[in-house]
Amino acid sequence: MEPIRVGVLGARGKMGSEAVRAVGEAADTELVAEINREDSLRGLSEAGVQVAVDLTHPDSVMDNLAFCVEHGIHAVVGTSGVGTEELSRIRSWLGEQSEIGVLVVPNFAIGAVLAMKFSEIAARYFDSAEIVESHHPRKADAPSGTAARTARMISQARAAAELGPMPDATTRDPEGARGAEIDDVHVHAVRMTGLVAHQEVLFGTEGETLTVRHDSYDRRSFMPGLLLAVREIERRKGVTVGLDPLLGL
Amino acid sequence: MEPIRVGVLGARGKMGSEAVRAVGEAADTELVAEINREDSLRGLSEAGVQVAVDLTHPDSVMDNLAFCVEHGIHAVVGTSGVGTEELSRIRSWLGEQSEIGVLVVPNFAIGAVLAMKFSEIAARYFDSAEIVESHHPRKADAPSGTAARTARMISQARAAAELGPMPDATTRDPEGARGAEIDDVHVHAVRMTGLVAHQEVLFGTEGETLTVRHDSYDRRSFMPGLLLAVREIERRKGVTVGLDPLLGL
Amino acid sequence: MEPIRVGVLGARGKMGSEAVRAVGEAADTELVAEINREDSLRGLSEAGVQVAVDLTHPDSVMDNLAFCVEHGIHAVVGTSGVGTEELSRIRSWLGEQSEIGVLVVPNFAIGAVLAMKFSEIAARYFDSAEIVESHHPRKADAPSGTAARTARMISQARAAAELGPMPDATTRDPEGARGAEIDDVHVHAVRMTGLVAHQEVLFGTEGETLTVRHDSYDRRSFMPGLLLAVREIERRKGVTVGLDPLLGL
Amino acid sequence: MEPIRVGVLGARGKMGSEAVRAVGEAADTELVAEINREDSLRGLSEAGVQVAVDLTHPDSVMDNLAFCVEHGIHAVVGTSGVGTEELSRIRSWLGEQSEIGVLVVPNFAIGAVLAMKFSEIAARYFDSAEIVESHHPRKADAPSGTAARTARMISQARAAAELGPMPDATTRDPEGARGAEIDDVHVHAVRMTGLVAHQEVLFGTEGETLTVRHDSYDRRSFMPGLLLAVREIERRKGVTVGLDPLLGL
Repeated sequence: MEPIRVGVLGARGKMGSEAVRAVGEAADTELVAEINREDSLRGLSEAGVQVAVDLTHPDSVMDNLAFCVEHGIHAVVGTSGVGTEELSRIRSWLGEQSEIGVLVVPNFAIGAVLAMKFSEIAARYFDSAEIVESHHPRKADAPSGTAARTARMISQARAAAELGPMPDATTRDPEGARGAEIDDVHVHAVRMTGLVAHQEVLFGTEGETLTVRHDSYDRRSFMPGLLLAVREIERRKGVTVGLDPLLGL
Repeated sequence: MEPIRVGVLGARGKMGSEAVRAVGEAADTELVAEINREDSLRGLSEAGVQVAVDLTHPDSVMDNLAFCVEHGIHAVVGTSGVGTEELSRIRSWLGEQSEIGVLVVPNFAIGAVLAMKFSEIAARYFDSAEIVESHHPRKADAPSGTAARTARMISQARAAAELGPMPDATTRDPEGARGAEIDDVHVHAVRMTGLVAHQEVLFGTEGETLTVRHDSYDRRSFMPGLLLAVREIERRKGVTVGLDPLLGL
Repeated sequence: MEPIRVGVLGARGKMGSEAVRAVGEAADTELVAEINREDSLRGLSEAGVQVAVDLTHPDSVMDNLAFCVEHGIHAVVGTSGVGTEELSRIRSWLGEQSEIGVLVVPNFAIGAVLAMKFSEIAARYFDSAEIVESHHPRKADAPSGTAARTARMISQARAAAELGPMPDATTRDPEGARGAEIDDVHVHAVRMTGLVAHQEVLFGTEGETLTVRHDSYDRRSFMPGLLLAVREIERRKGVTVGLDPLLGL
Repeated sequence: MEPIRVGVLGARGKMGSEAVRAVGEAADTELVAEINREDSLRGLSEAGVQVAVDLTHPDSVMDNLAFCVEHGIHAVVGTSGVGTEELSRIRSWLGEQSEIGVLVVPNFAIGAVLAMKFSEIAARYFDSAEIVESHHPRKADAPSGTAARTARMISQARAAAELGPMPDATTRDPEGARGAEIDDVHVHAVRMTGLVAHQEVLFGTEGETLTVRHDSYDRRSFMPGLLLAVREIERRKGVTVGLDPLLGL
């Protein structure tokens, strides 16, 4: 079988250079274009790119996607800034008959995607659920986007199962030790030198607890998910969000 | 709605007395018979038991089940010793038209069942998988039955996904620190005062790890699963093994 | 050697009844008096008690101690409510020549005492330190007293080593996910059905983390420390606070 | 104050190049010599090196140390292969009046040193102790040297406190799930893609457990300990083994 012809946009960036390496090393993909800020997008079509991987910037991602859609190139998008509004714009570009797939992936780490899914499944069977996320101290936001998203999924699963509020007799917490409440799920954020990106989702009921923990040490952890996206996109026409459907979850 | 009429066999045992308490306390179940070794099984039919919960002994469980099937009583079985051979015997008793449900449950802890299921799902996405189970020091077997079962499920999931052997460069391990190999999955057993029953399933791939941990502190952790079984058995004609199908997994 | 003659005050309480059991079972201690709210303290002197264990109530503990000091009875105090002011009152009762020991113990769990001590030692070697404490959901205060005390010890050890502030680039935390700040140490409190009392102290520096975790499952965990206090108090004239000095820390 | 003049032997190696970076960056140390296999040791004396850091090979370390002792240069040794015999040879070179310090460090990670020390302190207070070490799958030995050393320290501390054997009712363990026994302490070794170097020491007694965990993600974790050694060696004449004495433990 011919290898998939891949172009990486933002090839010199942190994620981009990892993607260049991963696509180059995999047996079934071939790196045929590296596009940086100063390069014309025409490099993609001239190189016969089948799948473009966008790892650029919120300012440029929509222009890049417009070009891909216009030139019949599938796109895997790891850039942030593609929200609800942007998604419907992309859908309108694709129209109904399109053969093009656009796969927007908020998190390429397969472990993180599984952890979130498992949390959603478990949520309905436990009285209590809380999240502790831990990251390097250079992170500006607390809690992490992944933790907030996980909290919302847990909250919705509990509501669907008609669970009542979680038990919590706290009457005195002058300093806010109980952390953030995201849709009724308490979320705690640790910031610490030596850490990278970690999340622990804790569930408890009478006499037992269940913990789903994900540790991400390295940008390389995103590459198996990125390659999975590159391989599967031809079978996913239209807009897809997240790796979940590709994992059969 | 009328509460479900429940009889507990082995009512004075450790699990049995917990079941008596739990069935008595739940709003939708009613405890109408407590049967111990010296009591006649006729107590079940005389009390109009709809669901019998067997928490007795491998020596008596099959006789108890024969009585239940004969008298049209659903049975939830927490007793060990119901293997492949016993299951097919029960199936032959039930015949094809039976309205009776027999639900054999190796583990009532919902958290443990979920942990095992999550491990099975995750197995195919990671290069490495190992299990560390930790129990109180009065346990005679190592590894635990749950750990061995989890190892086999992981091994089968890896085989189905055509994963190769796990990476392991160990060439010197004179004392056996790498632990047991159950179907190619390394399993480690910790025995320690202060612990009850715990299991950690670890998965690793390039740059990330995923951990599914279950902690069981108390026999009470089995009661939510036991009540779930009592409530669902009417919808499960024939023989069912494990809580998984009841959890929609 | 003669066993130590012990009286338990608050013998019917939760901790008290555990103490009655533990003192009764140990080979080198003898339970000679059980005093409850309605009993006269004279029961202690009449029974020839050498060491009184006070597990009563903040309202009664100072009267009990006055009686013990007056009657030459050593006292081990597990009751809360003995603060700085009370301690100096006790010291004034004892005077300079006293042969009596009063040992006030905020936490009898040896593991908790060690965890706190280890945290104090480690604090000066790491850029970052945070605490995650987890308890059953019936707890009214957040964070736990132990967590607050540990945070203060870490903060003091950092100041003594002239460490600067911990690195933390958080600029956006609208819901308070970063938790409580106790003397500059972030403290997070989890409340969850199924848990008892747990604390994790995390330290991080370039490329490594150190974690000290204590899990307390049961009131029985306080008994080894309580017996240690009973055995050692004869060698500790005057007022002592905490088990640390008895552990040689 | 003048910065300490440092020479690195094995400057091109993995640890060596990290040391070159760390010594160069610290305000109170100055890198004045980088010595590799092909360079003469005279480069050390010619550059006026005060402290040599040996990160070479078991074959060359003793020759390097002989040169340092002869030329009045303090030596910090991270190279393996300096055992009991080598240590007494070095002591004989130094003689009694020497002003030279030789500091042999099996592990520069301060967190690992603390974890080991804490384990030694805790050992006497708990009925049970076990070790789970986890490493990347390219490691040839199981268990790790650190785990074996920690096990021996725990075993000696238990013997000194006259503790009996740990409770363990295991009668059936056909596959060796209970792991290695190093001096009566069970040690378990996990090997997994995505991990680096991790160790968990578990202690348990009635109703409570204490866990000391060390995670090492990166060679950089050795640099704070290496710089500490460089700074303190002038105050440590003669031969010292390990960072413990420098940490005041």
